[in-house]
Amino acid sequence: MQPATLAATVVATLREVLGPGPVVLHEPCFGGRERDYVTDCIDTTFVSSVGKYVDRFEAELAGYTGAGHAVAVVNGTAALQVALQLAGVGGGDEVLMPALTFVATACAARHLGATPHFVDSEPDSLGLDARALRDYLRTIAERRAGTCVNRATGRVLRAVVPMHAFGHPVDIEALLSVASEFGLALVEDAAESLGSTVHGRHTGTFGLMGTLSFNGNKTVTTGGGGAIITSDRDLARHAKHLTTTAKVPHRWEYRHDEVGYNFRLPNINAALGCAQLEQLETFIRNKRRLFERYRLGFEPVSGVRLFTERAGTRSNYWLQSLLLDAPDRAQRDAILAATNEAGYMTRPAWTLLHELEPYRDCPRMPLPGAERIEQRLINIPSSSQLGAAERC
Amino acid sequence: MQPATLAATVVATLREVLGPGPVVLHEPCFGGRERDYVTDCIDTTFVSSVGKYVDRFEAELAGYTGAGHAVAVVNGTAALQVALQLAGVGGGDEVLMPALTFVATACAARHLGATPHFVDSEPDSLGLDARALRDYLRTIAERRAGTCVNRATGRVLRAVVPMHAFGHPVDIEALLSVASEFGLALVEDAAESLGSTVHGRHTGTFGLMGTLSFNGNKTVTTGGGGAIITSDRDLARHAKHLTTTAKVPHRWEYRHDEVGYNFRLPNINAALGCAQLEQLETFIRNKRRLFERYRLGFEPVSGVRLFTERAGTRSNYWLQSLLLDAPDRAQRDAILAATNEAGYMTRPAWTLLHELEPYRDCPRMPLPGAERIEQRLINIPSSSQLGAAERC
Repeated sequence: MQPATLAATVVATLREVLGPGPVVLHEPCFGGRERDYVTDCIDTTFVSSVGKYVDRFEAELAGYTGAGHAVAVVNGTAALQVALQLAGVGGGDEVLMPALTFVATACAARHLGATPHFVDSEPDSLGLDARALRDYLRTIAERRAGTCVNRATGRVLRAVVPMHAFGHPVDIEALLSVASEFGLALVEDAAESLGSTVHGRHTGTFGLMGTLSFNGNKTVTTGGGGAIITSDRDLARHAKHLTTTAKVPHRWEYRHDEVGYNFRLPNINAALGCAQLEQLETFIRNKRRLFERYRLGFEPVSGVRLFTERAGTRSNYWLQSLLLDAPDRAQRDAILAATNEAGYMTRPAWTLLHELEPYRDCPRMPLPGAERIEQRLINIPSSSQLGAAERC
Repeated sequence: MQPATLAATVVATLREVLGPGPVVLHEPCFGGRERDYVTDCIDTTFVSSVGKYVDRFEAELAGYTGAGHAVAVVNGTAALQVALQLAGVGGGDEVLMPALTFVATACAARHLGATPHFVDSEPDSLGLDARALRDYLRTIAERRAGTCVNRATGRVLRAVVPMHAFGHPVDIEALLSVASEFGLALVEDAAESLGSTVHGRHTGTFGLMGTLSFNGNKTVTTGGGGAIITSDRDLARHAKHLTTTAKVPHRWEYRHDEVGYNFRLPNINAALGCAQLEQLETFIRNKRRLFERYRLGFEPVSGVRLFTERAGTRSNYWLQSLLLDAPDRAQRDAILAATNEAGYMTRPAWTLLHELEPYRDCPRMPLPGAERIEQRLINIPSSSQLGAAERC
């Protein structure tokens, strides 16, 4: 099909499913007790880094995900940085991560003085390709004194950070097996996958630690925010300590026993999060209903298909993902242009991280899978209220 | 006077000035349009990193301080880290800073791979001792190829970070002269001194950049928040870029051209800040009125005096500071215990940074001034509403 023809068909299908535009890519829905909780913070003057909503938000995240422990922080990038540090990542290490992800993962590693090492992705999950990673590591890595060393650079491969792209669960069980074979810490970037599960178990709870994001574009938002989740009580305590300036409790003394971070989530943002969590299952139900509508809409359109969760997983369908049948950047860009011009906001996948100026010289394996996905994928409007019986 | 006697007198004076307790050290006052602005964010769904309140908050800070440019970030620590980076601080450098300050300054340097180098303070301002610093640098530093090198460590002394402790302006003009003599970048930590001026000019606007904090305990709060202020448009633009993931503007592409930070202040926090800024001059007026009440109350008490702003400066009196006539930690601790037990929350100065485990090995000059202040100083309840005609 000619690019212009398919692009026009995609626009027509979006209009059919969504009604007349403009429709943004993703907006939050504040249909619950957001105003009450936020006003309560102001009324009680507890808007800052200590407060009942922080405690409650952490407890509810720990319970909802089943992780057992959650530490609320200022955003998902901060969560990743601290989780990587607690996983042992330090200056001079390498951190394996998808080339196809948001730049935050690479920033988090860099801010610890570590080097990102980019790994390929596969089309069934849009996430890390476990088989290709295993084959690659068997070629480049060797175990030395309990660590895994990149023979080419001589640096320690300390951790691997799978990411559940657009909310769709990666093959985390296969990746755990690779991490175990090579002695890598597995930190699970679940920034986009709150509510997504693998065999009923919440994403972010398979690795040593998982990280969440509550940015304004996420399924649940706190304005800006994130969390570290883990089943390890000591790690959780350490994460809380590090992210709250490493202050040792005392009635009045100011003692700090580590180089800490000021990564505390303010109570007013946690209040928003508590109200949002009360609606999470509704949001996901609506997003899954939207998926069904899109699926029916795009079924007769040849040349594209809607990404569908893998068997055994539940996706939160944070961002609905349309895939061209074949890699074709001209076609992709024609669709991006036509849809955005028609008022239906769409976006491509991220520019692959090794193509960004600051990460161009980082080590990487061949990335044919990531490149193909990047040339095929378009995210289409995904707000939960688009799938609701009534708008938020 | 016996410790117990003076402590009892201090408690009685606090009761006389403040009325019956309990009285916290500092709590915010939300007497303005906080609820309206925050609710507006929720109603419009703009709670996150983009929004009109972020733009407005930055414009108002730029105007109020006279800096011309302001970049809102997630907290004061983040502001310091980015300001130091933009001032050229990098791995292996040393950063001169007071030993008598909050730990954030040291953390910010450490997170850039730099080493804190502790400087003494003097009692007239409670901040950096410019004369002692000049004498010290003449002994230990030498200029090499345009930089200032610590002869003992061989590292570059890249920047100096004066801090306006408890809101009281430091002798910034003398410090600028020292910075100029030794080719040091001067980054001004005005975290505590919003509204404080030196010869009518706002603190934070004397150096290359200044940083502010809007933590819950500050004169103006955003829950958590901070800002970088500067008169240099290019530095401001760079700060904005770095703190917003270094994303290059594009309709849909995800390109990032530097290793950025996710340090964006959410719109909902900025909304709180906008409402607070509208009341700032009232807060300061009340704090200065509280100072007068305390001054009268403590005038007949021998053994202590209230810290008073230096001639030519205006202090926001963020935290009122009671000073023992002579260094006496036992006396200080007796007063801290008695006041807190009586329900009047008080605190000492920070533990000197070189006494904290993670910074014990950092270079430092002799610190007799900081030590004496630390043994003399007690902050007493300072909320603006304590000086108001009517409570908030």
